[in-house]
Amino acid sequence: MTDSSPTHSLPDGFRAAGFACGLKTDPAKLDLSLFVSDVPCVAAGVFTQNRVVGAPVQVSRERVPSGSVRGVIINSGNSNACTGQQGLDDAKWMTAETAKGIGCDETDVLVCSTGVIGHFLPREKLAKGFGPIVEKLAGTPASLADAAKGMMTTDTLHKLASRSIEIDGQTVTVTGAAKGAAMIAPNMATMLAVLMTDAALSPERATNVLREAVNASFNCISVDGHTSTSDTVLLLANGQASGERQSPDTSKPSPALVTAITEVCADLAQQIIRDAEGAEHFVTIDVRGCTTRKEAAVIAKSVAESALVKTAITGNDPNWGRIVSAAGYAGIEFAESECSLTINGISLYEAGTPIDYDETAVSQAMSTGEVHIDLHFNRGDASVRYWTTDLTAEYVRLNSEYTT
Amino acid sequence: MTDSSPTHSLPDGFRAAGFACGLKTDPAKLDLSLFVSDVPCVAAGVFTQNRVVGAPVQVSRERVPSGSVRGVIINSGNSNACTGQQGLDDAKWMTAETAKGIGCDETDVLVCSTGVIGHFLPREKLAKGFGPIVEKLAGTPASLADAAKGMMTTDTLHKLASRSIEIDGQTVTVTGAAKGAAMIAPNMATMLAVLMTDAALSPERATNVLREAVNASFNCISVDGHTSTSDTVLLLANGQASGERQSPDTSKPSPALVTAITEVCADLAQQIIRDAEGAEHFVTIDVRGCTTRKEAAVIAKSVAESALVKTAITGNDPNWGRIVSAAGYAGIEFAESECSLTINGISLYEAGTPIDYDETAVSQAMSTGEVHIDLHFNRGDASVRYWTTDLTAEYVRLNSEYTT
Repeated sequence: MTDSSPTHSLPDGFRAAGFACGLKTDPAKLDLSLFVSDVPCVAAGVFTQNRVVGAPVQVSRERVPSGSVRGVIINSGNSNACTGQQGLDDAKWMTAETAKGIGCDETDVLVCSTGVIGHFLPREKLAKGFGPIVEKLAGTPASLADAAKGMMTTDTLHKLASRSIEIDGQTVTVTGAAKGAAMIAPNMATMLAVLMTDAALSPERATNVLREAVNASFNCISVDGHTSTSDTVLLLANGQASGERQSPDTSKPSPALVTAITEVCADLAQQIIRDAEGAEHFVTIDVRGCTTRKEAAVIAKSVAESALVKTAITGNDPNWGRIVSAAGYAGIEFAESECSLTINGISLYEAGTPIDYDETAVSQAMSTGEVHIDLHFNRGDASVRYWTTDLTAEYVRLNSEYTT
Repeated sequence: MTDSSPTHSLPDGFRAAGFACGLKTDPAKLDLSLFVSDVPCVAAGVFTQNRVVGAPVQVSRERVPSGSVRGVIINSGNSNACTGQQGLDDAKWMTAETAKGIGCDETDVLVCSTGVIGHFLPREKLAKGFGPIVEKLAGTPASLADAAKGMMTTDTLHKLASRSIEIDGQTVTVTGAAKGAAMIAPNMATMLAVLMTDAALSPERATNVLREAVNASFNCISVDGHTSTSDTVLLLANGQASGERQSPDTSKPSPALVTAITEVCADLAQQIIRDAEGAEHFVTIDVRGCTTRKEAAVIAKSVAESALVKTAITGNDPNWGRIVSAAGYAGIEFAESECSLTINGISLYEAGTPIDYDETAVSQAMSTGEVHIDLHFNRGDASVRYWTTDLTAEYVRLNSEYTT
């Protein structure tokens, strides 16, 4: 699934940039990102479901869906969450300063912040960035990479993905940038993503497509089950694929476009899991044969978030008992005899009974760092695919010493 | 709350013993426990809510509530869960062999097993224990301690608690033994407890009292959120406090007795948390001012099980943001302005806004190893007290290398 191209291009009519305002411990690190559409574009958003919500989320979610957005401004190094009225003023100030630079109304700029919560934004440092970042805006892969880097907190790698498809003889591109390395849970914990496409979508269609894509990607990953206060996924669609602006298309979007947007989201979601703090194993969990997708997702989440399952994986231990019992306490009333389990293709547990298997073979397969847990129930046809990590001593070290 | 007496006595008319059958890596360690009432007694039970249930749970829960139980046989070192029909046969065999020794019907013996799941019980080793353990039965503190030791798995300490109270001029004793050190979650993950009292209770009253006590104790602790397949809390009441057997009392039990049983359960629950694998901090979480106790419990569980809250505590970091956001994703629709937080008595967050506090003072208070998180909501009068631990690199090491 991971895009193999080393560089990623922006869709037509988009520019991006990153800048260093000095918010991070290393003041040379990029901490401000800007994504701009040359023309007013359609924008949709999906936001954290936490009851405690950062100021930028409050500002941005009032501004989407929209047909006239011009840009997204993001700072890292300081989350602007739990900051009361001043936080709201600061978030709006960021959009106003950006709007001055790119020439639009401040309500046509969306805003995100990420980093440690509970501290007011350092306006004097940020103020130095809005002029230069507009000067640096460009449609190049290097500018896009800078914008992705400006969103990073504990990420070790910046995260980009793109797909180009043909629709009615026209090339359409979907490109996304994301950040996130810990505190990742379904419903998008401490993660930000900006998706851009030069396809033409109506605000309503863009919202529906984005929700569908997020449900099959960012809502299917979990590092530690912690939903943050600032999670945001934005989709900008400017209809510039033809070189001139298309009217927003209110008809059902092409399946190829929906697939491309979903694939870009899933690619970014997997990059987040692969970059998870302290992770040594990338774990794919398939839960199949359930009565509903929701039922499958509840079981997958329970397995993905079990500290005992995660630590067993850390030790390359095919501990089917921890997996099956984590499924068992998910709250779904299945019978033991309905449940079977394979790890990396080797069957360990069938129809409620453990079976003989080659423990060394499974353990060796797990030691590659790629673990595939397949839980099959004999209840129906619904399934879900989930991604998570192991739980390592390094995760504990990083999160008990985290300061910036 | 912890009982300060170094030894604990059995209530009148109870005997106990422990024996080593050689089930553990160190064959000299006790792995078989027996608790016996000299006369048929009332028994009640509360069992795991996991959908995947060990064979001993299936056998025991069919035998309670009862008015004629004589004993409880427990082995550690092998859980007899996920073992199909043979597991059921083995569990019943354990009760039959015990019944022969103490002279009763096998259905008047209850059974528990704990240890690694998915392996059949080694009958040949266990068979050597049933005769000798009956020979060793005694009413002494030493025998009681042996029985508590025979239940241990990864526990570093055996766990006993007792209370004696006066009811109508008569001394009544409640004594409990428990095991559990990891995989502890509300709804009783991998924990066993046997409570004995010489009070007279009817089966129905005993069941109600036990449920109430478990809800305020074993269901309020969480190490890693993992509910096991074998959790069992049993209450035996033999009415022997007067020296001769009292008829089971069907009237409402005395408040003093309910309090004593609840205190013994809470004492044992806290001992389990203090012995949690790799734990360096003992954490008490009070959630107050909620509309219902259930609402408070949902928030407390979310905070207690957050890996980010736990790792912050490991580092003595008063990271109120992680605590408040863990409350925020619990699924309770509170407003930020309804929420306030203190840690070890120092206010960090009031009515939705972080406030200035002395970070060094809080951190120093946390470094004592005793952390008190008090989350107050402005919604109602319901509250809950919860106990948990931090999450350490040692926990990860123990659970990624665990084999026996």
